[in-house]
Amino acid sequence: MPNEQDLSNLMEEQHSLELLPIGIIHSPFRATGKAPYQGHKSEEISRIEVFKEFQEGLKDIEGFSRIIVIFWFHKSQGYHLSVKTPWDDILHGLFATRSPHRPCPIGLTVAELIAREKNILKVKGLDAIDGTPLLDIKPYVPLIDERSVVKSGWLEGKLGAERR
Amino acid sequence: MPNEQDLSNLMEEQHSLELLPIGIIHSPFRATGKAPYQGHKSEEISRIEVFKEFQEGLKDIEGFSRIIVIFWFHKSQGYHLSVKTPWDDILHGLFATRSPHRPCPIGLTVAELIAREKNILKVKGLDAIDGTPLLDIKPYVPLIDERSVVKSGWLEGKLGAERR
Repeated sequence: MPNEQDLSNLMEEQHSLELLPIGIIHSPFRATGKAPYQGHKSEEISRIEVFKEFQEGLKDIEGFSRIIVIFWFHKSQGYHLSVKTPWDDILHGLFATRSPHRPCPIGLTVAELIAREKNILKVKGLDAIDGTPLLDIKPYVPLIDERSVVKSGWLEGKLGAERR
Repeated sequence: MPNEQDLSNLMEEQHSLELLPIGIIHSPFRATGKAPYQGHKSEEISRIEVFKEFQEGLKDIEGFSRIIVIFWFHKSQGYHLSVKTPWDDILHGLFATRSPHRPCPIGLTVAELIAREKNILKVKGLDAIDGTPLLDIKPYVPLIDERSVVKSGWLEGKLGAERR
């Protein structure tokens, strides 16, 4: 349970948890259900348009071959705490899945950065649908973001064998 | 440039980009500047409290040894598009850094899940400060989240040699 101080801090913060997108994702996936379950398997190219006012913040990004793209699941409406996925017929806890339907509908994909031209990033392996609001871009750094000795829980051995 | 349809979609979405936290992070790092630059080097234990109303969504999470913790940089105020970091004296584009001061102040750490007890997750390697609002938890899946053949840009060889 949060103590009173935590709660009061949190309530205070709740007023400020508002986001304005920093860009928009242009992708070949035109609608929900058209995006691949896992972008990393896709050879399709997406264009991330960072609004011009943020272009300065992209300096040096081209030195990274992978970037973490954080976006808003703008077509997501509501959620269930227990969900089925394409990988089996069992109900799993939502937070043990990558379902787009979440209390905070934030999506995250590690994509391959092909090229940058001014405020446009050309990427491969992004599974966001066309028109997706962009929230953030972070450099992907193996020493920070990769983790060895991993148990993949209920997903173990299932990726690549999804059922449509 | 976004076309008119994109813009109108985006404007529509801008009203709805509001987040309510799903929990709160209790950590030994009491203030900004006390958290390690990279959580993965830390042996400290943090407790992620997922609010009870979301507990059902944690089912099966304990099968994963790593989780992606997404949180709100609640102490972050404002940002600069060009920033210096602990790793060198050069100005880098904000989006080529992991600075907490960002237009959308969303933080992301891959943490080691030690144990779950009901709605509490005990984790190692989380660099969020005490009282941080929790936005989302996703299972870390190497096949999705790990990327080989990586260039680490300006950060190459610098991690582990940060200057205080």
